[in-house]
Amino acid sequence: MSILRQDPTTKDWVIIATDRGKRPDDFHRAAVESALPTYDPSCPFCPGQESLTPTDILRYPPDSPRDWRLRVVPNKYAAVGLNVEPYRKEDGHFFREMGGVGHHEVIIETPQHNQSLSRMTSHDVEVVLQACHERYCALKQDPQVKSIVLFKNHGEQAGTSLIHPHSQIVGTPVAPLLIRKKYEVAISHYDDTGRCLYRDLIDAERSAALRVLFESTRFVVFHPFASRVPFETWIAPKYEEATFGHVEPGHLAELADVLRRTLKTLDDALGDPDFNYILHSAPPEDDTKHYFLWHIQILPRLTTIAGFELGSGIFINTILPEDAATHLKNFLQ
Amino acid sequence: MSILRQDPTTKDWVIIATDRGKRPDDFHRAAVESALPTYDPSCPFCPGQESLTPTDILRYPPDSPRDWRLRVVPNKYAAVGLNVEPYRKEDGHFFREMGGVGHHEVIIETPQHNQSLSRMTSHDVEVVLQACHERYCALKQDPQVKSIVLFKNHGEQAGTSLIHPHSQIVGTPVAPLLIRKKYEVAISHYDDTGRCLYRDLIDAERSAALRVLFESTRFVVFHPFASRVPFETWIAPKYEEATFGHVEPGHLAELADVLRRTLKTLDDALGDPDFNYILHSAPPEDDTKHYFLWHIQILPRLTTIAGFELGSGIFINTILPEDAATHLKNFLQ
Repeated sequence: MSILRQDPTTKDWVIIATDRGKRPDDFHRAAVESALPTYDPSCPFCPGQESLTPTDILRYPPDSPRDWRLRVVPNKYAAVGLNVEPYRKEDGHFFREMGGVGHHEVIIETPQHNQSLSRMTSHDVEVVLQACHERYCALKQDPQVKSIVLFKNHGEQAGTSLIHPHSQIVGTPVAPLLIRKKYEVAISHYDDTGRCLYRDLIDAERSAALRVLFESTRFVVFHPFASRVPFETWIAPKYEEATFGHVEPGHLAELADVLRRTLKTLDDALGDPDFNYILHSAPPEDDTKHYFLWHIQILPRLTTIAGFELGSGIFINTILPEDAATHLKNFLQ
Repeated sequence: MSILRQDPTTKDWVIIATDRGKRPDDFHRAAVESALPTYDPSCPFCPGQESLTPTDILRYPPDSPRDWRLRVVPNKYAAVGLNVEPYRKEDGHFFREMGGVGHHEVIIETPQHNQSLSRMTSHDVEVVLQACHERYCALKQDPQVKSIVLFKNHGEQAGTSLIHPHSQIVGTPVAPLLIRKKYEVAISHYDDTGRCLYRDLIDAERSAALRVLFESTRFVVFHPFASRVPFETWIAPKYEEATFGHVEPGHLAELADVLRRTLKTLDDALGDPDFNYILHSAPPEDDTKHYFLWHIQILPRLTTIAGFELGSGIFINTILPEDAATHLKNFLQ
């Protein structure tokens, strides 16, 4: 039948119900023959259409009118923005409202319309991470920013609206409850043990050796014990570091290679699945403490978030992360 | 630009970003000409295929081999089940696991394959609610059940796998964090004011009169101030009642009419949208207290839950609930 497992970082439960009978290789979808062109004249992220996006925040190399390698631009349909009055009002006891002040930027990862991180060279992925890091550090300087969410929507099921490879970074004027909860659980562990929850958890995952996909010198890739979705994958450093903002630029090349290899393995095993990834870091105001450890969560979108998940917050996963690891290892290169 | 609003029942925020320029009527999808037959011989929920589902838990009328009006059966692919050893184990500090003990039932709402709650008579919807109520009360008696989630997945975007009209009820052996959080916020309000948070909130929504769709004698239908998705709609009683289990059977007819009318309005305004609904109640162990009020949340699935939502828990909604209400009122019958 099924088992329940508790996520030690949130204390919430997931249900792992393998009865639905899906085997790991049932999740592979027929490879969509990539009919995408390298260049699409109607794509606002392709070279030559720079006028369709707001003015660059960052461009690699800096002076490259059209032969750029990467651009960061404000999101044209921003969730939060800089030209917003930072009001806060309360109408009666219940109707609390704030101006949507913040940053919402798009990292256009490559000029090539049909590229993907999994098929880039590690060096090209490093350039993407350099831009993410540079913008992360910049947003951290804004005292209005209480939380930074760096994420990628890849594919329709993951909510992408533009195919051209890009990720997004949002600096919000409030700390989301989910981050507060993760942080609260981490502090409680620190108070109990004097150690970082995530460091201990990663040591436990490495000792168990059931769900670790691979390791590099500084990073480990694993399917968490309480994976919420089939093939959920985390990338975390093996050393103490509360925030992505503190990653030494010299370590980004290694992280890029680990990220590329992880995404390539998921691609090969699952047939270019739709996925989201999210980079979790300590909130900017608390990132000098030792409670937290930044990490990347990759969530393949192979199943649908339905009424049970929305009503309870509990995910139903149909495959054991141990089985996911065993299967994915066949595709490691 | 955008605004942030706090959900007073969870204290989490939503972002309402109307810049994306969608008007309320842009969400209408072309009506899918219902090519569905009234009967599908390959559907396990259609009459005559009763052997394809586990044995009935409930059937209306009780002795109706094939001419039944409604059936409740165990979910064949149950997330939790009764034949599970109720173990609880902890491997080291982090790997906490339980047997998936519980109830997972499917309410087959009608023998008619192509029916829907919005197109049924109010009396037929009442029969569905009677079955929900009967099973809710039965699950509440099981001391192993810490939370009951009653929900519906309508349409592919909402995660349904079978078209035949059905809803589901799950009794879990743990209290989900989301329910704990809602309950904690409600208790805090009760401690501060001596009153039920939800009663006060509903009074405030009725006074504001900006987001109320309609009312009946005992129920009110409104779009919450901090709606997470376009056209999010709540149905709540106007009187004190912590749990759906305490609804007087005599009130179900009125609730059925309100639910049918709400779904019909959403159908007409949005073109049979995919949606989830979830019935929230006080946890079984606390349902005699006055902190909580049961309510139904209807979440049309017009947008995709993407990386930002998964990484922060904060939803980005693209339409003001006030505008949703103004628009929907045009379709009220």
